[in-house]
Amino acid sequence: MPYHIAKSFLNLTLRCSNTISNRLFCVKPFYKVPTAVNAKVTQRKSLQNQVKITKKFKERLSAYLRTMASPDIEAKLAPLRAAVREYADIIRELKANNAPQNDIAKAVVELKARKKKLEDTEIELMPKDASFDRPKLEDLLKRRFFYDQSFAIYGGVSGLYDYGPMGCALKQNMLQVWRNHFIIEDSMLEVECSMLTPSPVFKASGHVDRFVDWMVKDVKTGECFRADHLIKNHAEKLISDKKTSSELKEELNDVLNRLDGFDNNDIQNIIKKYNFKSPITGNDLTEPQAFNLMFPTEIGPTGDFKAFLRPETAQGIFVNFKRLLEFNAGKLPFAAAQIGAGFRNEISPRQGLIRVREFTMCEIEHFVDPENKTLSKFKEVRNMMMNLYSADAQMDGKSFTRMTIGDAVEQKIVDNETLGYYMARTNLYLLKVGIDENKLRFRQHMPNEMAHYAKDCWDAEVLTSYGWIECAGHADRSCYDLTQHANATNVKLSAERKLDAPKKISGLEIIPNKSVIGKNYKKTSKEILGKIGALKIDEIKRVEETLNESKEYIIETSDGVAKLSKEMITIKPFEKTIHVEEVVPSVIEPSFGIGRVMYAVLEHSFRTREGDEQRNFLDLPPIIAPIKCSILPISSNERFEPIIESIVQLIKAYGLTYKIDDSGGSIGRRYARTDEIGIPFGITIDFESEKEPHTVTLRHAVTTEQVRLELSLVAEVIHKLCTSIYTWDDVKKQFPLFISEQK
Amino acid sequence: MPYHIAKSFLNLTLRCSNTISNRLFCVKPFYKVPTAVNAKVTQRKSLQNQVKITKKFKERLSAYLRTMASPDIEAKLAPLRAAVREYADIIRELKANNAPQNDIAKAVVELKARKKKLEDTEIELMPKDASFDRPKLEDLLKRRFFYDQSFAIYGGVSGLYDYGPMGCALKQNMLQVWRNHFIIEDSMLEVECSMLTPSPVFKASGHVDRFVDWMVKDVKTGECFRADHLIKNHAEKLISDKKTSSELKEELNDVLNRLDGFDNNDIQNIIKKYNFKSPITGNDLTEPQAFNLMFPTEIGPTGDFKAFLRPETAQGIFVNFKRLLEFNAGKLPFAAAQIGAGFRNEISPRQGLIRVREFTMCEIEHFVDPENKTLSKFKEVRNMMMNLYSADAQMDGKSFTRMTIGDAVEQKIVDNETLGYYMARTNLYLLKVGIDENKLRFRQHMPNEMAHYAKDCWDAEVLTSYGWIECAGHADRSCYDLTQHANATNVKLSAERKLDAPKKISGLEIIPNKSVIGKNYKKTSKEILGKIGALKIDEIKRVEETLNESKEYIIETSDGVAKLSKEMITIKPFEKTIHVEEVVPSVIEPSFGIGRVMYAVLEHSFRTREGDEQRNFLDLPPIIAPIKCSILPISSNERFEPIIESIVQLIKAYGLTYKIDDSGGSIGRRYARTDEIGIPFGITIDFESEKEPHTVTLRHAVTTEQVRLELSLVAEVIHKLCTSIYTWDDVKKQFPLFISEQK
Repeated sequence: MPYHIAKSFLNLTLRCSNTISNRLFCVKPFYKVPTAVNAKVTQRKSLQNQVKITKKFKERLSAYLRTMASPDIEAKLAPLRAAVREYADIIRELKANNAPQNDIAKAVVELKARKKKLEDTEIELMPKDASFDRPKLEDLLKRRFFYDQSFAIYGGVSGLYDYGPMGCALKQNMLQVWRNHFIIEDSMLEVECSMLTPSPVFKASGHVDRFVDWMVKDVKTGECFRADHLIKNHAEKLISDKKTSSELKEELNDVLNRLDGFDNNDIQNIIKKYNFKSPITGNDLTEPQAFNLMFPTEIGPTGDFKAFLRPETAQGIFVNFKRLLEFNAGKLPFAAAQIGAGFRNEISPRQGLIRVREFTMCEIEHFVDPENKTLSKFKEVRNMMMNLYSADAQMDGKSFTRMTIGDAVEQKIVDNETLGYYMARTNLYLLKVGIDENKLRFRQHMPNEMAHYAKDCWDAEVLTSYGWIECAGHADRSCYDLTQHANATNVKLSAERKLDAPKKISGLEIIPNKSVIGKNYKKTSKEILGKIGALKIDEIKRVEETLNESKEYIIETSDGVAKLSKEMITIKPFEKTIHVEEVVPSVIEPSFGIGRVMYAVLEHSFRTREGDEQRNFLDLPPIIAPIKCSILPISSNERFEPIIESIVQLIKAYGLTYKIDDSGGSIGRRYARTDEIGIPFGITIDFESEKEPHTVTLRHAVTTEQVRLELSLVAEVIHKLCTSIYTWDDVKKQFPLFISEQK
Repeated sequence: MPYHIAKSFLNLTLRCSNTISNRLFCVKPFYKVPTAVNAKVTQRKSLQNQVKITKKFKERLSAYLRTMASPDIEAKLAPLRAAVREYADIIRELKANNAPQNDIAKAVVELKARKKKLEDTEIELMPKDASFDRPKLEDLLKRRFFYDQSFAIYGGVSGLYDYGPMGCALKQNMLQVWRNHFIIEDSMLEVECSMLTPSPVFKASGHVDRFVDWMVKDVKTGECFRADHLIKNHAEKLISDKKTSSELKEELNDVLNRLDGFDNNDIQNIIKKYNFKSPITGNDLTEPQAFNLMFPTEIGPTGDFKAFLRPETAQGIFVNFKRLLEFNAGKLPFAAAQIGAGFRNEISPRQGLIRVREFTMCEIEHFVDPENKTLSKFKEVRNMMMNLYSADAQMDGKSFTRMTIGDAVEQKIVDNETLGYYMARTNLYLLKVGIDENKLRFRQHMPNEMAHYAKDCWDAEVLTSYGWIECAGHADRSCYDLTQHANATNVKLSAERKLDAPKKISGLEIIPNKSVIGKNYKKTSKEILGKIGALKIDEIKRVEETLNESKEYIIETSDGVAKLSKEMITIKPFEKTIHVEEVVPSVIEPSFGIGRVMYAVLEHSFRTREGDEQRNFLDLPPIIAPIKCSILPISSNERFEPIIESIVQLIKAYGLTYKIDDSGGSIGRRYARTDEIGIPFGITIDFESEKEPHTVTLRHAVTTEQVRLELSLVAEVIHKLCTSIYTWDDVKKQFPLFISEQK
């Protein structure tokens, strides 16, 4: 398909039928706490709603996944796109004129309603002739133990999954590729920090206060419901009820459209207005309560050392900033990375691996001078073509654009080179592990999605049968995190920037008399000295004035207050020449949910062959395939055993994983069993193999083609195929094709 | 040194001065719950006591680590060994005569006291002329950020450590070697299970009831103390007090000797008798309370789904047994493995990485037919020489014996081939990652150390400055775990064994009328059917009798009771021919604490060169070294940049990690910096390098020898050195030695 058509087709952001609101198809990152004042709970909520997969929807989505839309569909969508754009313009104008916050909010609601209409129509217009069968994939993943529900013999726990041998190897390989692609390639500082984390760390990061969902409880049984889910389910039920008046239906549709932005008062009002009850007992419901999504625990036996399981790995890097900077000889920029578990106590997790309570994350924190975010390695990726879906394009109802990351940074679509570099590297990684480029886009956060401190955010989104899901976020978090921890601990978390020329500075300095303060305030004196040291110049001026007026200056301490006299502190002007200045680095953070990437890869690699639609196979890139090759004797004859043994020795020498299937089944059935779990290459031993020089056939699972080659070469050839030194075409050029009856 | 001497020297089990009781030097496994009825809390406690590192002790231990004892020392120890042996014989006799449990217990106390005297004397007699400097190693590990205390800027949390870039890479490499050595080599089924675990799982495994330490609290402040630590500290203080009478000192020494076996009553009696108080406030103490060492949390929002963070990874494998057996086509034996985190809420953790609250474990569960524990691969390790320290040798006060694992299994010292195979494989792994074979032994558990269900247990113990620490356990756990989970869930966790010949069996069977039971007991009916299905033949007989007598049979359910009538169940005799029989597999479990292995490797590789005692270096095996090579231009001249760049490209192509140090420091100082962090190879670029064909020198850190070779070859050579294809001697044969002024 010509590129310009593909482009507009992918623009058809997938939406479900009108019972499911738009946010459902952009499953959002779950590991970052929104720290914007007005993002708060509102934003968290929008990240969560679940897809109700109706048969109708599944069919449509499948259709979309296989076919692309046509120009006449685009023509039908044009007026709807224009309608969206109209309101985007109105909002921009309101903002430009500093209109009241309330007017803007109203306009945003209208914009969203128009976007929803556009997306519903997109779904309506999608071709209806294909079938992606998620249950079939899920059956395979369960049956061949890629992963399955944890503690199933004890009844299971939702949101917890155990990886079996296939899933575990697949995930390990994806992590190994990640480590090589990011950490080794860019000499990042990898760390492994504790998962158990004391409460004050998450108090400072904002998670204690803002990492919450709203829930309501049954007043009698205490059963808990996620407030937005409950409203959604009730409203949808009423809408689908024939007895409901069309006015009420319209009202409820409006509620669904606005649900994203509801705070606790809105939730309470809706529940009261429509008299929503517990769906299980019919009992009344409590007022909405904020439920923190971190798992709480306690360290030590006293019960007063509160801790949490970390919901993200990033904070571990931030609290180690000083050590890492020192490790890097005090120089900026540098990147630290961590691969590890995160935990999140979902109220009611669903959607398989997409939303779980325990998951593996890969996070990078790139620390950079806020005034210089250029990156010399950016030149290496400058020409990479990517699918970029900017905030402006979203506002205007446009599709994403395919362009080079170099152009995007130049045109200020992407804020800076460092951010652009990581987006490009993520793009490369995702393609390497098997994400379909046609189902991959980088979506910029709209201004109201971002935390107030964030400069720019781009999510790598992948199209799956759950819709567009975010697999990796890329955020320029400015200096927020380091500043928060520095304030909480009174530890300076900054680097030094060399000045182009030495600079003379003057000001006021405050000199504490440590021995006098120590004598008077003992244990508290360290805290007092910290606070004195942190005073800025105008504050020092104020201290001086207060001291002159009332002979003492009072500061608050954890012990109460401390009264500082002139005996304890001296204030005097200073002048000095400095060669460096302090700078709190900006943090650019790529953050991956590896379980999500893995699930998306499995969907994108799930195939049938033309004319053989009953059998599925996984077209996994060899580099991540859990098992690299199968070893299949044509029959279960003992004569083949020494040949198998010698192949195994060769295969092991290359560190390749293998699976021997010498069961009596037909070779065709055995091929199918290995294809199903994504074994890319098969070694078949037949009666020819016994002749010297010993030969075997090597089968390429995706094409089912086979070549015949000497046994002594087969391990090296597979090794080269798995490390991209050879393509299958290279192999076919070197060795004769072998035509078998069984493929 | 001739082998026979080394052997007897290593027999000098290290013990501290007499204020520290014997158990302190055998830091025991912390991840297995002792499930023996009489092991209970007692055993857990013995695993914990801490070493107080006095200067005197450090000197002696260092001496021991460097020098070995002499035959005349052995002569002095002989009578003490005999005294131990005497009591071992008495105990054996008592056991043979089925003497009362109490008499045996008394004899064991005497045995332990004699062992302690032997070990104290061993310490006394150790040479006193060396110095292993743990603080110096610790300073290096902190300064170069191998690992450090977590959350230090928030005041730190004891027992939690963050791995920096060096430690993280070292650990990752050790895990990768472990994965290749065990999982890939033996085609094990690797899994990755949830860390969050519902409470019923650990109820069944025994952890909820028995994974505890005793603690006492300050009655006023609530401050907690580990009871055994508190008694130990108080007793040692009194003993070292000149005013204490010699009778009291003797009494207290006796208390210290017996502390290991104390239950809560013993603890309470001692605290009362000697009037021990809170060491901080002097307040009274509460009675001893059991403190569970698992971290508690809750899943979901209701607060009634109790869960724990797993203290070991093994249970995740057991609850997946059915899936794994199916994955293995129903066949025994097979091994599953897991690498992952474990958590343990120590009351007061110390000893650096040896005893921590969060740690990485590598566990294997090998499921095997209990009647056939032979293993065909055993032949591959049969001739491996190992340091085996049997229970008998320990009882007799003897040293360990160096023998082949084949002989050990043949002589029934090690119970079976499968257990022996894993011990040998562990031996190989530990040597591969850099453990000194002279400081490694396999110590068999004494009968009173083992859980009642365990058949045989051997700990791989490594000698460090903390004494002999257990790095890996090897236990034949019989069918305990699967049986516990099967009983708790009513899910059959067994495999089928093919009978040699078909067998006719007869008995009684109970046939439930599912529809009637379903109608009467609705939700509970599944549970009822499970219970009926689990009835054994005599129980069925009893059901039949009861039904005939009273027309109904009552069983307990979670809902109360169910009354089963003749309408609901039919009982009738049956006869059938069976070809298979059910068998609950035995589990043989190697379990590694990788942090402990890593720490031991760091101690064993910490060296100075003769004549240069101020500079330390790490002699890490290249395969686990965090950074494989350094790249050092002889001066920081820009001319070298293109050469550096081309080396980096080559190095990266081989996936090798590297570190460029182009700082201005002298080449000698830069070598020292790379040696200190265990970089095994260094590439130096000098002015010769600019001439074509470009050459560089390659330096071997351990010997400081250098060769000169073509730049284009250097990456391949390092790759071969790191994968043991080449030794340094091979390299020296191929390339000319280069004599530099700086080493």
